[in-house]
Amino acid sequence: MDDLHEGPGRTDGLHTRLRAGLPADAVLTDPDVMASYAHDMASFCTAGAPAAVVLPRTVEQVQHVLRTATALRVPVVPQGARTGLSGAANASDGCVVLSLVKMDRIVEIDPVDRIAVVEPGVVNAVLSRAVAEHGLYYPPDPSSWETCTIGGNIGTASGGLCCVKYGVTAEYVLGLDVVLADGRLLRTGRRTAKGVAGYDLTRLFVGSEGSLGIVVGAVLALKPQPPAQLALAAEFPSAEAACEAVCAIMERGHTPSLLELMDGTTVRAVNRLAHMGLPDTTEALLLCAFDTPDPAADLAAVGELCRAAGATEVVPADDAAESELLLQARRLSLNALETIKPATMIDDVCVPRTKLSAMLTGTAEIAATYGLTIGVCAHAGDGNTHPVVCFDPDDEDESRRARESFDEIMALGLALGGTITGEHGVGVLKKEWLARELGPVGLELQRGIKRTFDPLGLLNPGKLF
Amino acid sequence: MDDLHEGPGRTDGLHTRLRAGLPADAVLTDPDVMASYAHDMASFCTAGAPAAVVLPRTVEQVQHVLRTATALRVPVVPQGARTGLSGAANASDGCVVLSLVKMDRIVEIDPVDRIAVVEPGVVNAVLSRAVAEHGLYYPPDPSSWETCTIGGNIGTASGGLCCVKYGVTAEYVLGLDVVLADGRLLRTGRRTAKGVAGYDLTRLFVGSEGSLGIVVGAVLALKPQPPAQLALAAEFPSAEAACEAVCAIMERGHTPSLLELMDGTTVRAVNRLAHMGLPDTTEALLLCAFDTPDPAADLAAVGELCRAAGATEVVPADDAAESELLLQARRLSLNALETIKPATMIDDVCVPRTKLSAMLTGTAEIAATYGLTIGVCAHAGDGNTHPVVCFDPDDEDESRRARESFDEIMALGLALGGTITGEHGVGVLKKEWLARELGPVGLELQRGIKRTFDPLGLLNPGKLF
Repeated sequence: MDDLHEGPGRTDGLHTRLRAGLPADAVLTDPDVMASYAHDMASFCTAGAPAAVVLPRTVEQVQHVLRTATALRVPVVPQGARTGLSGAANASDGCVVLSLVKMDRIVEIDPVDRIAVVEPGVVNAVLSRAVAEHGLYYPPDPSSWETCTIGGNIGTASGGLCCVKYGVTAEYVLGLDVVLADGRLLRTGRRTAKGVAGYDLTRLFVGSEGSLGIVVGAVLALKPQPPAQLALAAEFPSAEAACEAVCAIMERGHTPSLLELMDGTTVRAVNRLAHMGLPDTTEALLLCAFDTPDPAADLAAVGELCRAAGATEVVPADDAAESELLLQARRLSLNALETIKPATMIDDVCVPRTKLSAMLTGTAEIAATYGLTIGVCAHAGDGNTHPVVCFDPDDEDESRRARESFDEIMALGLALGGTITGEHGVGVLKKEWLARELGPVGLELQRGIKRTFDPLGLLNPGKLF
Repeated sequence: MDDLHEGPGRTDGLHTRLRAGLPADAVLTDPDVMASYAHDMASFCTAGAPAAVVLPRTVEQVQHVLRTATALRVPVVPQGARTGLSGAANASDGCVVLSLVKMDRIVEIDPVDRIAVVEPGVVNAVLSRAVAEHGLYYPPDPSSWETCTIGGNIGTASGGLCCVKYGVTAEYVLGLDVVLADGRLLRTGRRTAKGVAGYDLTRLFVGSEGSLGIVVGAVLALKPQPPAQLALAAEFPSAEAACEAVCAIMERGHTPSLLELMDGTTVRAVNRLAHMGLPDTTEALLLCAFDTPDPAADLAAVGELCRAAGATEVVPADDAAESELLLQARRLSLNALETIKPATMIDDVCVPRTKLSAMLTGTAEIAATYGLTIGVCAHAGDGNTHPVVCFDPDDEDESRRARESFDEIMALGLALGGTITGEHGVGVLKKEWLARELGPVGLELQRGIKRTFDPLGLLNPGKLF
């Protein structure tokens, strides 16, 4: 097996063995085509050149890929739609990129058991629409929901706007079919509403970024479809005032279906992009929605709390269509911030919501210190901030400052009792920071788990830790 | 260290070393006193004689116990209130019983972050009442909630009546402090609403029955306190009809806060015990409650669905007090069934709710085959059935039939796509069945995780697998 360590001989052998168990069109080896599978949407993350890209359509084909990889000691990098923001799907040199996008069947939707059984390549929005036809709701809604896959969502434990009421992907994964590094098939979890039989392996795979096994099937929990949500927008003269309103809303026991914050930088960028007529003096815009039986009453109560916290304007929507218009501002945030500089880095720090104000103030200070534009949008109800660092990758000094400020923001989050990642994951971007957050004992146990599942270290190596 | 393998010498050394880091009253060695710590509430589970019982009050004391145990290679069996139903807290011969009941402080309750920070010995009901004073709600409500501890709830991933709407204990554990087998302290998880930094070790500990580490602190998620629930009772001429109603209620998108079923055997036992005036011809009683803004409207809709499924009588409560009266019947179920024979064994099979009817019919057939009384109460909305096998432990043949029928019920649950345990755990009672449910690949990985956390196998040995 000496050829393993030589370029051409090794890849020829790999390609031949892969093709023995996969259809011809499921093994891509053209260098330009393979290059297009090299990385996800994160900045500052190295990516290698794959030795092959495979697009299996069945569990058996995935098993064949893993058996081949184990036999030849070739690393495997699983991919969904590559919309990730931490480099977790980036190829490593000589790896097999295992794209699951062709395994995209919705196998079953059951309105009584309130579950869906899906393959990993199903696009989030496709699933959401399919279950809606049965009066059901699959809540997790990352910004990339129109393109990202359920497998990718499971790999990164994705969140979204709905989490403040409905929680993250992890809370909707009941059971998994997983192909292990050696090609064996593992079934975890259940189709039932409850179950405590043994250690929760299902949950261990959620957010594991493909480092423990390849998810080839999932049983997902569904909710009844709630009423259409009704939203309000509230303008504040400072981020602190908006954060005070967020705390008051949660302290009073409200359960909004959405509670988002955009800072002044973001509001102005959206204004420039979409001429939404928001006053340029607004230093924070809060968006709050309810999908309760009487959302107007809930919004009225929240509007009062916003005014008490210093809101200069509170605009409740009259209907679902008007609500959607208000939420457009939030949906445009990232696009708007991307017009400021050629590149962006999106932080994902989550802090206790009592620390949200300190997080926003501190982020503004970091932006000033580093002479950068950093716009913040936040899933405020969850304390999950997305500071967006805007920079020019061709400007070496600005790039350095961008990277340093990105790290400073994570340090601030940890100092405030938060986490370096609320929903985007670790990938290669935040590896050092994961070690800081977990500490040596936690890291040692995480590595022990990795060894238990992947003793040869072939699954998405170089990610997480 | 030869004395380790001799009775008196070994225990003398152990006692001396334990006392070196614990207050005098925290180390119990009287055989009669120790015997009272030997087992939980499960039938048919062997229990050994502890070498010592310790009742630490601080994290440092727990660390001392674990360091001592590791140094002397003595097994450690953690315990809460010993209300468990699977023998998971049963002592093994020569072990240190580590009771956490003296670590019972509620450290913090934060209504904005909606969290509580607690020590493991806090009683569930004490926490529930404490958070209620802040307008908050800690949902998990196992039947033993007045006495069971949060640490025990975490160890067994406890459920309760509220799960159909609010989920199980696992969904409320955000972060943990855990003393590892070697005495080191591990902090997992977070205080934030979201977080995906590394593998979910927090969730791994929930339901691990003390086999991976000793939980010495927990950050728990809280909900806003919902309105008082309003209930109805519906009488059915057959269990199948009641199950049809359960399926219709869930299919129509209702979100009851409670949806419980009692079979005819249970209804008649409760009638005999409490003279509740239920007709003896009732073959199933369904209890449904809502804590929504307009529970009466929801109950009216559910009442219609019950009648359509064949309910002979639908009795909605007019207020919270009347609702409590209706729920009394459910709360008395176990006590009532315990009057039938000197002993009971409580199964805990959870099936997809579409299979609930088959589960109940099959359980009735098993009762007939084995010539036993088996009453069933069920968290019907979750498909989680508790068949209660009634028997006389002094009657050898009946005991054998009880044990066999108990196993048959688990086999039926697995055949219907369910799990052997929805909320009571595995302990020693269901070890063989866990292996059947998980299969060899799953079991191998579970054992690998166990070795990663507890390489010497000292933590609650002989439980789970």
